Amino acid sequence: MKNVIVNVTLKTGVLDPQGKAIQESLNSLGYKEVQQARVGKSIELQVKDGPNLEERIKEMCDKLLANPVIEEYSFVVEEAVQS
Amino acid sequence: MKNVIVNVTLKTGVLDPQGKAIQESLNSLGYKEVQQARVGKSIELQVKDGPNLEERIKEMCDKLLANPVIEEYSFVVEEAVQS
Repeated sequence: MKNVIVNVTLKTGVLDPQGKAIQESLNSLGYKEVQQARVGKSIELQVKDGPNLEERIKEMCDKLLANPVIEEYSFVVEEAVQS
Repeated sequence: MKNVIVNVTLKTGVLDPQGKAIQESLNSLGYKEVQQARVGKSIELQVKDGPNLEERIKEMCDKLLANPVIEEYSFVVEEAVQS
């Protein structure tokens, strides 16, 4: 079993109104040092071992997890810890 | 200037309908190896250097960025790269 952590962020240049709202809220709470905020998603998958794992994760990202027009993604594969 | 990456995830045991939907969609697309999916947020902040940075980031998380009842967070502080 593997843990895959997929990080999806907006491409540079794409407007991020949610991030802007966070930045302005933090500023108005007194945290004036915050210059910019950008919000992304992190998706943690538990995946059974199999062939072509990385290739299949890439496909999942392109088809479902990220919108390649405005988002970019990266992922890391870790051995799942058995408890 | 520092880059702060805050990772907000649902606590273990809290239902994650968005993650469940992702898992089922991936399964029905043929990715049967996906056993579970959980969705979190990653928030990237650009913050001016100042005293008590880590303490202030913790306050921001508790007050605005995460809901401590159902979510947990972690963050890393990096030196911002000048371009």
